[in-house]
Order: sequence, then structure tokens, then C-alpha cells
Amino acid sequence: MNTEGGKISVGRWMQEVGPEGDVALSSRVRLARNLEHLPFPNRAADDQLRQIQGQVDRATRQQPIPELAQVRSIDLSDYPALEREVLVERHLISPLLAQHPLYRSVILQPDETLSVMVNEEDHVRIQAIVSGLNLEEALGIAQRVDDFYAQRLDIAFSSELGFITACPTNLGTGLRASVMLHLPGLVMTGAIRQAVEAASQMHLAVRGLYGEGSNALGNIFQISNQITLGRTEKDIVRSLEVATRQLVGQERAARQALLNQAQTALDDRVNRAYGLLRFAKAISSEEAMRLLSDVWLGMDLGLLPASDKAAWRSLLIIIRPATLQKLAGRELEPAERDRFRAGIIREQLARNG
Amino acid sequence: MNTEGGKISVGRWMQEVGPEGDVALSSRVRLARNLEHLPFPNRAADDQLRQIQGQVDRATRQQPIPELAQVRSIDLSDYPALEREVLVERHLISPLLAQHPLYRSVILQPDETLSVMVNEEDHVRIQAIVSGLNLEEALGIAQRVDDFYAQRLDIAFSSELGFITACPTNLGTGLRASVMLHLPGLVMTGAIRQAVEAASQMHLAVRGLYGEGSNALGNIFQISNQITLGRTEKDIVRSLEVATRQLVGQERAARQALLNQAQTALDDRVNRAYGLLRFAKAISSEEAMRLLSDVWLGMDLGLLPASDKAAWRSLLIIIRPATLQKLAGRELEPAERDRFRAGIIREQLARNG
Repeated sequence: MNTEGGKISVGRWMQEVGPEGDVALSSRVRLARNLEHLPFPNRAADDQLRQIQGQVDRATRQQPIPELAQVRSIDLSDYPALEREVLVERHLISPLLAQHPLYRSVILQPDETLSVMVNEEDHVRIQAIVSGLNLEEALGIAQRVDDFYAQRLDIAFSSELGFITACPTNLGTGLRASVMLHLPGLVMTGAIRQAVEAASQMHLAVRGLYGEGSNALGNIFQISNQITLGRTEKDIVRSLEVATRQLVGQERAARQALLNQAQTALDDRVNRAYGLLRFAKAISSEEAMRLLSDVWLGMDLGLLPASDKAAWRSLLIIIRPATLQKLAGRELEPAERDRFRAGIIREQLARNG
Repeated sequence: MNTEGGKISVGRWMQEVGPEGDVALSSRVRLARNLEHLPFPNRAADDQLRQIQGQVDRATRQQPIPELAQVRSIDLSDYPALEREVLVERHLISPLLAQHPLYRSVILQPDETLSVMVNEEDHVRIQAIVSGLNLEEALGIAQRVDDFYAQRLDIAFSSELGFITACPTNLGTGLRASVMLHLPGLVMTGAIRQAVEAASQMHLAVRGLYGEGSNALGNIFQISNQITLGRTEKDIVRSLEVATRQLVGQERAARQALLNQAQTALDDRVNRAYGLLRFAKAISSEEAMRLLSDVWLGMDLGLLPASDKAAWRSLLIIIRPATLQKLAGRELEPAERDRFRAGIIREQLARNG
């Protein structure tokens, strides 16, 4: 991450507002792959892990396709803990990888659209992330990278089970697709519970911002497929997209209902949130997410001037603890962090309204 | 009240920041006087009340001194209830007079420095109000007006008891002096209780903004003398001034202590208050007072840019319910009032920072 000319760089998916961008923040596709004749990472010896890293790195450098042309490979073994945590906050590696970095790597595209984790739960996990609701684009990127590696690596595949993965829940396609949704309307009207139940019945998982077990901070939810086997990649992605479009419609209806029934209260709420973000001198991550959610909603509903929506969105990542400390250039005590966070938010807003 | 060129006019004491103006908002002196041979207002017949109004009005017009040169006399009998309430909010008449307006008048100087209530508890109550801690100036104005009336009206005076008043607590000088103080430091540090007790021991009364029984909204307190008899006007005013200077010193020490011990928290608090006042779309009178108190404190401590302090002070009066409705030009439901109040505050801040 750089701060270029005072602007803090974030992944491309955060710099744009994509399709259905009033509700859908991002679409992500991940493909799990493993090499033949080598044990899964949790059973592999150190030299085997190193061997896997080496094979993937060498393959990556062989006449790479555009998706891989500018990547850099980071060996996490000697990468600082704070930097690893930054990668987690930017959704580029998993917490698991950050916690167990020895003989693990990540291959990163500078615009953060593509990342390849090496020796996470599986040998290779290809991830593509794009703005808005655009699962097909994310799938396309991941598949092109997958094809590339399939031609250069000996990928474990069974004609019966499909791709072999460390965990049986990933067997078959090895595909996990997910969409990050901002659902303040469903939360405020209380309709979220029913929506989550409906999604479960469609074999979809609904979780908070940073995956399983995390709360829905800032009214942000991740919806993803649970079934990986017995269906094609396109089918899996399409049914997630259908379910997501339903949720998007429900969210918009909920927002409209709030606007019709309680416009003044809503207007007051979103403007207060803006005022607090603009002027607070210390702010916790949780409060900031709550207020950011209100401001995004206000912009989407025309209650706040929709200045640079993407800049507002990017604060979601920028205010996370590790990213903040990286920006500060040093470790920060929690109280310092709250002050620094408030300062970063004020600066961004001074620039972007 | 006018809104001249978008600026809402307030009394002169609100347009200026007077001596010790970081703590002392205003100084007020009131003299209670009665006419000989006429019963006190609460026992007077209607024609007697009219007679008193007439006598005072005629006297006022006889070669008036500068303090009375531009006054207008308002017969409250046929003055609208909302307008009477506005006068109460501007500290120009008492709630008693507003509630029982028949055959009652107020004689008003346009800059609101001087007002004379006719047929309140006493026949004549002369009130002078000035900015900051400046009781001598207020006393001077009230005494010059008192001398003026003494030469033209037959004022009840006993060589033993002094000026005769309806209530024995006003006997002697008929003088009530009071100072309005902003004491957020003493409230936040909890030292206010001890300060109030100390004041009581000096025979001073400490009350909230709108007199007896009212809460200390916005951390604003009124401190006034309780003894009127057996001492000269100058003595009474001087001992109130001494006590007030002590309180001012204690308040400043408390603010400094807060600044030393909790600058970040204080900085955050006052800036948040500013942000909310600047952006809220609906705001109750109580919340507005609380936030204004924080903003004033922030300006006094240099935590907020001290733009137009007096304009910020004047909001104290402008946001009161009746004044607001007068500004709106119509009655407002409480919810409408909260919206209108927020709008007025935003407008003022857009003008004055």
C-alpha cells in the first residue's frame, strides 16, 4: 500500500463502484487446486512445502498471461506480521495464512484483482475480486489463471470427484464464490433475519465482513455458495448471482420503505454520521464502520451529496487496525489508533467531501 | 426580533463577549419599586392596574434620559401568547408576567439592555442586562432609570425598611443582581456541587438558566444575591462580584485540569458536538444546549476555531421554542420544531463557522 500524493491506494475493486454498486461492494471467486503426488499443506514436510512454493513460482514466470504479468511473489515466511495482517484486511490472504506463514507465499497482482495463495489449506488458491455484482468477470479471471497453471503444473483431478481438495467441502469445482453486500435497509427494517434464512435454504452461507464468525460490522454481509460438487462453475456462480439479485432488490425496497416512512429520521441519522466522521478526534473501528454504513446509505439515497463514493468505500479497508499502523509507519496503541483513524478519515473527507 | 439580512437580531448583551466572557455570559440587575397609595398588583383592582400602567407610561415619556429615549411600551393584555413567550426566552419579562398579561406592560429598550416590567409582582421592576461580568454597569443603568422614575413617580419608601416591595425578600434595596455563568468545567470534574454549596453559604442562590426550579441546561447557571436588606446596592453587587470571580477562577482551573488530563477526550467531545450541530437535521432544545455548551468550551479552550463567539452564544436564545416559532412565522409541532431548530443552527454556522 502506498500513499501517493496523499491518496491512499487501495485495490481496484475499491476504487470503482461496480454493477449494482449501491448494494454490492465486491464479487469474489476462489478456486482451490492441489498438485499431484504431494501431501496437502497441513501434512507436508517443510521441504515439500518449499518444493510447492518453488513449482508454483516457476510456473508463474513462464510466459505469463496478462492476469499474471505484473505479479510479485511474496514469501510470507520472513514477511512482517503487521504486513501479513494488512494483506488479510485487504482480503488478499486468509487469516490462516497470516498466522502460519512459514513456507507460505502469496502471488499478488499490483491492482489486487488477483491473488494466489500458496500452501494455505490447499497448495494453490486462486482468488479474483472485482467491484460490484460481477461474478462472471471474477470467474473469468480466476479461470484464465487456473488454465494457465493447469498447463504448467500437475494438478490433482479425479474424473469422479473433480478437483481434489484438502477439505471435502471444496471437492469438485474447488470453487467458492462470494459477494459482499451492504444491507443497512434490511438491518434497519429487521427484514435481514428472514433474508438470511431464505439464503440458507438456497444453500448459501451468509456471514459478516471478515468471514465466518465475524459480526456484520457496518451492515456488511458476505453471501457465498456452500455447494461445490456436482454442478458446473457457471451454474454455481449463476445461482449465487440470482440469489444476490433478490437480496439487492429486497435491500432497495427496504431503503425505499425507510425513505417513505421515516425520511426525516433517516436524513438526520446519515447527516449526523457524516458530521461525526468529519469532526471526531478519536474513533473506534466499530463506530467508524457503523457511521460509514450510514454515510454510504445517505449517499445512495441522495440524502448526502454523492461526492467520491469509491473514496468513501475505500475507508472500509483503510481504517482497519493493521492498515492504519502501516500508514502510520509504526505500531499504535489502541487509543492512538483511534486518534490516528479519526485523522485519516478527516483527511480523506477533506479531499473527497 | 428581526432577521435582518439573514442575521437574527438578539439583545446587545448577546452580540458581545464581555469581561470574563469565557465564563460569564451576562450580568443582570433588577430593582423592585412600588407606587405609594396603591395596592400591590396581586391585590389591585383592574382600574388600579390600568392607573399604574398609565402613570408609569406618562412618566417614561417626560424628557426621558438616554436609557429610556427609544423605548416602546408594550401592553401585554392584547399581545399574542407566542410573543410574550419570546420575551421570556429573551430574559425581558418573567414567566409570571407572560402567564398573567392583563393590565401588565413592559417598557423595552430596542437593544434589550433595559426593560421595565409594570404590574409584575411589584408595580415597577427595572432590569438592566449587559454582557459578561459587569454588574456595576448593569447597576448604573438600573439606578439611572430608578432615579428618573423617582423624580416623576411617588415611590413607596420607608426610612426604616427602605423600598417597600410586595414580597419581604425584596425589601430594602429591592435589588436582585445575578450573573449567568457557563460552568462546564465544574460540571465535568464534579466540582460543581461544592461550588454551589460554597455559594449558598455566602447567601447566594444558584439556579439553572431560566430561574428557579429549572435545570442547568447547557451547564449554564445563574448566581444571585438572596439578601436585599441592610446593605447598600453597591455592597450587594460587590459581594456577588467577588463570589462570581471565585467561581470564574474555579471554572478556569477545572477547564485547565481537564485539558491537562484528558485533552484528547475533550478535543474529541467538542469536535463531535460541532459536527453534530453542523449536520444534524433534527435536534431537541436539550440536545442543542448540551452540544452548544461543548462547542463554547471548545472555542474557549482553543480546541475549536473561535470564529464568531457571540453568534455562537446567541444560538442559546434563538433555539428556544417560542423564538423559533416566531422566526418560522407560525406554530410548529415539536417534531417540526426540532427540524426547524436544526436548520437555523446549520444556517448560523454556515455564516459564522
